[in-house]
Amino acid sequence: MDWTTTPAVSRKVEETEFKLECEGRTVPGILWRPEKHGENGKLALLGHGGGHHKRTEYVLAVARWLARSHGIASIALDGPGHGARLEEGQEADFGKAWDAEETTANIVADWRAALDDAQDFLGTGPVGYWGLSMGTMMGIPLVAVEPRIKVAVFGLMGFWGLNRDQLRATAPLVTCPLRFLLQWDDEIIPRERGLMLFDALGSRDKALHAHMGLHSAVPMTTMRKTTIYLASYLCADEGSA
Amino acid sequence: MDWTTTPAVSRKVEETEFKLECEGRTVPGILWRPEKHGENGKLALLGHGGGHHKRTEYVLAVARWLARSHGIASIALDGPGHGARLEEGQEADFGKAWDAEETTANIVADWRAALDDAQDFLGTGPVGYWGLSMGTMMGIPLVAVEPRIKVAVFGLMGFWGLNRDQLRATAPLVTCPLRFLLQWDDEIIPRERGLMLFDALGSRDKALHAHMGLHSAVPMTTMRKTTIYLASYLCADEGSA
Repeated sequence: MDWTTTPAVSRKVEETEFKLECEGRTVPGILWRPEKHGENGKLALLGHGGGHHKRTEYVLAVARWLARSHGIASIALDGPGHGARLEEGQEADFGKAWDAEETTANIVADWRAALDDAQDFLGTGPVGYWGLSMGTMMGIPLVAVEPRIKVAVFGLMGFWGLNRDQLRATAPLVTCPLRFLLQWDDEIIPRERGLMLFDALGSRDKALHAHMGLHSAVPMTTMRKTTIYLASYLCADEGSA
Repeated sequence: MDWTTTPAVSRKVEETEFKLECEGRTVPGILWRPEKHGENGKLALLGHGGGHHKRTEYVLAVARWLARSHGIASIALDGPGHGARLEEGQEADFGKAWDAEETTANIVADWRAALDDAQDFLGTGPVGYWGLSMGTMMGIPLVAVEPRIKVAVFGLMGFWGLNRDQLRATAPLVTCPLRFLLQWDDEIIPRERGLMLFDALGSRDKALHAHMGLHSAVPMTTMRKTTIYLASYLCADEGSA
């Protein structure tokens, strides 16, 4: 994990960009920490959606909520073929990014490498995963194989996209508590595919929260509640759940 | 509304039983109010599930939460063929109670008469409906025709039971904000029927919360959250949402 920017504090949250090397790939990311470092090792991994990037508006909001209200650090990575993984002037191409068979395995390896480095730096504490849409395409295969992740927020995805076979294979292996968001009128992910994915997840402690509206119409109040949910597990030993 | 017991305070909530006459039926009910009467007219109508009665454990819990934490009064009625509508020693027979064509219309009239009387007594304020399972069988046809009801909690029901035709007819007429609970492993209401009922409800501001477990396994924390949801609408003008 090589820092590429100086730590900068905005709205009581410290933000630092980094790069790390994983299997020959250069992986761009951001670390957010509470301004007053708690050094408690609590960490959330934030996966952005297709066409977005590691510092897209709602990822930044989630990172700041977690840091400010709950003392939880976060890291976000640019997803495959997104953000700073692109050449200057190039636009994200979701289809191309996920077309390769190895895309899922690669991004899982990237997240695990980032988690290793982050824990070396922050200390070892409870870890959560938060990611909707493409964030769930990355997150389910990751959480399935990563025992350090104790709680997850998924959603806006189904057995649908270019890694649907990997989702089918890994969803039953997810066993941590999770919340799954579904947009009832999702114009991208057919409702039935989303319900099937939720059903397939192996966790006993899982809840589906479905709201009206299109794919991208998740209200900010709902986003905020997902961070409270995540924090309730990551901070459970402090009685703040 | 004739009081049949003296007001009794338990755990800071005042409870009084009553009977009212509606179209020749004697309707038994309970009124709960905060010990220190707020006289704000805020009111919740609580519909119990099949085989239960107006003072069943979770209805009492909901009434006390609403009164103590949010200053909201509640009334519960015994449903058709349930509770004190039965002869001494008789057991509730859900199938028999809902077998008659007029059962739905009758219970809707009973609720509206109780609401009239309660508002005469408490004053006019925002009204919510809360009812799961049979509470939803009563509640959807009621909320569909009762403009005084501004928010609802439904769930554990689908296009399934003996009044499914009435549910089909009235669900699209429900337009208030609502939350709908669904038990993913419900052994009584097939999941697909529940999803269809949720889908048919006419409200734009509606959310489905699905949890793992059988029909009756709704956790108390989820029950508590439904009262916070209801209160957030009934108390919205006070900025307590």
